[in-house]
Amino acid sequence: MEMASENPESVGFLSRGCCWFTSFMKNLASKLVLEPARTARSLAQEDPRRIIHSIKVGLAIALVSLIYYFDPLYEGFGVSAMWAVMTVVVVFEFSVGATLGRCVNRGIGTFIGGALGVAAHRLASCFGSEIVEPIILAVSIFIFAATGTFARFFPKWKARCDYGLLIFILTFCLISVSGYRDDEVIDIALTRLSTVMIGGSAALAICILLFPVWAGEDLHHLVADNIEKLGDFLEGFGDEYFKTLEDGNVRDSKALLEKYKSVVNSKTIEDNLVNFAKWEFRHGKFRFRHPWGEYQKIGGLIRECAFRLDSLNGYLKSEVQTPQEIREIFQESCQTMSSESSHALKNMARAIRTMTSSYVAVAKSHIAIAKSAADNLKSLLKTNSWQQTDLLQIIPVITVASLLIEVVSSTVKIADSVHQLASLARFKKISEDDASKSDQRNTERILRSPSIEGSHGLTISVE
Amino acid sequence: MEMASENPESVGFLSRGCCWFTSFMKNLASKLVLEPARTARSLAQEDPRRIIHSIKVGLAIALVSLIYYFDPLYEGFGVSAMWAVMTVVVVFEFSVGATLGRCVNRGIGTFIGGALGVAAHRLASCFGSEIVEPIILAVSIFIFAATGTFARFFPKWKARCDYGLLIFILTFCLISVSGYRDDEVIDIALTRLSTVMIGGSAALAICILLFPVWAGEDLHHLVADNIEKLGDFLEGFGDEYFKTLEDGNVRDSKALLEKYKSVVNSKTIEDNLVNFAKWEFRHGKFRFRHPWGEYQKIGGLIRECAFRLDSLNGYLKSEVQTPQEIREIFQESCQTMSSESSHALKNMARAIRTMTSSYVAVAKSHIAIAKSAADNLKSLLKTNSWQQTDLLQIIPVITVASLLIEVVSSTVKIADSVHQLASLARFKKISEDDASKSDQRNTERILRSPSIEGSHGLTISVE
Repeated sequence: MEMASENPESVGFLSRGCCWFTSFMKNLASKLVLEPARTARSLAQEDPRRIIHSIKVGLAIALVSLIYYFDPLYEGFGVSAMWAVMTVVVVFEFSVGATLGRCVNRGIGTFIGGALGVAAHRLASCFGSEIVEPIILAVSIFIFAATGTFARFFPKWKARCDYGLLIFILTFCLISVSGYRDDEVIDIALTRLSTVMIGGSAALAICILLFPVWAGEDLHHLVADNIEKLGDFLEGFGDEYFKTLEDGNVRDSKALLEKYKSVVNSKTIEDNLVNFAKWEFRHGKFRFRHPWGEYQKIGGLIRECAFRLDSLNGYLKSEVQTPQEIREIFQESCQTMSSESSHALKNMARAIRTMTSSYVAVAKSHIAIAKSAADNLKSLLKTNSWQQTDLLQIIPVITVASLLIEVVSSTVKIADSVHQLASLARFKKISEDDASKSDQRNTERILRSPSIEGSHGLTISVE
Repeated sequence: MEMASENPESVGFLSRGCCWFTSFMKNLASKLVLEPARTARSLAQEDPRRIIHSIKVGLAIALVSLIYYFDPLYEGFGVSAMWAVMTVVVVFEFSVGATLGRCVNRGIGTFIGGALGVAAHRLASCFGSEIVEPIILAVSIFIFAATGTFARFFPKWKARCDYGLLIFILTFCLISVSGYRDDEVIDIALTRLSTVMIGGSAALAICILLFPVWAGEDLHHLVADNIEKLGDFLEGFGDEYFKTLEDGNVRDSKALLEKYKSVVNSKTIEDNLVNFAKWEFRHGKFRFRHPWGEYQKIGGLIRECAFRLDSLNGYLKSEVQTPQEIREIFQESCQTMSSESSHALKNMARAIRTMTSSYVAVAKSHIAIAKSAADNLKSLLKTNSWQQTDLLQIIPVITVASLLIEVVSSTVKIADSVHQLASLARFKKISEDDASKSDQRNTERILRSPSIEGSHGLTISVE
């Protein structure tokens, strides 16, 4: 109070200025340091392989740049050694398949582009005239660049060799253009090809030898996870819709119920992974010609099923609800359909994850129970005990029931395609007894921990 | 016969060989020439801008390569002129936004990478020792490459400046590495920056001045087309489900009914186009800060609606059908809901396409009719005339009806977000009378051509 009375205006201005400055600095610090740090931590926690990948890239580039520092190596290539560094930077991708694809594309693109570039240069220099030569070169560049660019629109090529076409255009232009100033055009082409090959092999070697990330494995687990997510939804749905859980647990399972949403938009990721996986050679449990295309088919069916679940999810939030006493009539068969489809899906996920075909058989037995529950439901509807009920009130529960029937038939389709995958990829077999025992153990574990997730205190794991 | 009798075996072998050879050549010709030619023709017919784009790319590269042929230009840059050609090849994209984004990314990446590269080189050369210098350079390359690679995982940066980060790593490595052999490191950095800028501006100039393709415009039309496709489905659905069309027309409309399927998987294309559109400046009807993000929101709602349509589509193929006499009871309200939602969606598509907000109001009036049809349906269900009917038989039609009710509420959501877009983007207004008149003319045209597509002979166009 005393200080303020000395010159209240200037002090007020100063303290306001201080306040503004501190808050500005805090904001700046949070925008530039804290937020990125938080994002970085969550990215690393989500998938620690991201850190390993970054270190691998740094290592590969640093190693290849050594060519420049050692005289004997440098003398062979000269300034062109730069191309090796460049190749590592642009070729090194997250997964082995993607890196291999880019390496092969870059190699072949450089080879064909270089060869045609030399040919164009030879053709142009036949004329020997200083006016005709640039014209022929420019025209050939125009023709090849335009054709190459149009070829990139071809759907088949776009998926497999888009990058190769780009590198083809690039190399063709570089070689044919530099031939005009430098007669050692074949030398340039060969140096470029060899430096690209050195860079590419260094990138590939580090990508494969140090903690490799296989696109095929990622795809395999992605599809299994997606099936599991559908199973999670159906596991929680019956309880949630018929409100058999206590209030506290309902909140926990809500998060679980929303997990299927990421499945709906996973098509692009799947397509990319399939493309990369096709480049990969034998690794881990996967043979060279593993039927990667099958995963795409299963993925399509999974998404179809996820659309149905999205409709079901709408009924959880719907304001018009069927009265409890009517719902109770449907409860048993609906809950059976929901939980048995869930078990079936989870067994399929396990079949894929462990590459054991016997779990598909277990899944089919669950589907059979779900189907008979659907039949029960139908005969329940045929009885004429509905004459006194308001049709408007039963509609929501009837729609839920018929959506569940559709989900069951969707599950059948998924089971068929997983079976197809299992036979094409020669999944191993264990005795059916073992498979059902393991399934039983899992079912028990789920039954003993009704809240599914979030309250691990209750979970009594039998495994 | 006479010839064959001479030496039947050798003649048979020869003719078989001839046959095999002809069929092989035919196969080869069809694989290498006919198939690509057919694909190329259909790609060009689908979107003629693809041909124009290819020609533009060829032209830009040929023009920039002229730097190499003219002495005065070449003397300024030397071999580095190559970077200009390279820049054009890798920067030229289909749309203005994508090209601009890559140019800005490449420019800024080259600038920051070059500056830090020079700094690293200066720091290393301070020590002057032939052993310490390469070590410091290699370590700094490792650190920057690893950090830059990890930064590419940040979701925000991945969308906006993934390419810039790649170019940053590339330039940093090139400059700091070549500084070891060449003391004119600032010269190298500046030459590289200026050649990149020349190449980038040439690519941009040709991309913008010759038949520009705007990502924003494409996005705008994509969203309008997607809404229209939902409308097409609903237009045909009522007739198809209640079998009010003759058999011939049913087949025509089947293709129309499947069009919505492409909507389900359009998320990636939309996201990309939004990213590109944000780079674009004022063009055509779009201001500089056009609310591109709104299109993403509308897109999400469109897909949600498309999932419902997918469920409805399942009921068209379903084997269990409600008997005709029961269906007839529901027919009127269901057909009204379906056709009015269709009109509403088509008016929204027109509102977006013509950027006229008045059509949104017309759409809302159609939605009001659809809503009252839904209310009718509900009161219909409340009457007790159902006591004698088999509940199992009415389920399919009841599910269809409740899905249609959901579609109506989905349409309401889309209308709200189109309204939001219209007010943010300041769509123009015409008098409501004009809008409804134009709507009426369209409705008449549709009513007079019941087969919608395929039989243009019947279409009496009033417009």
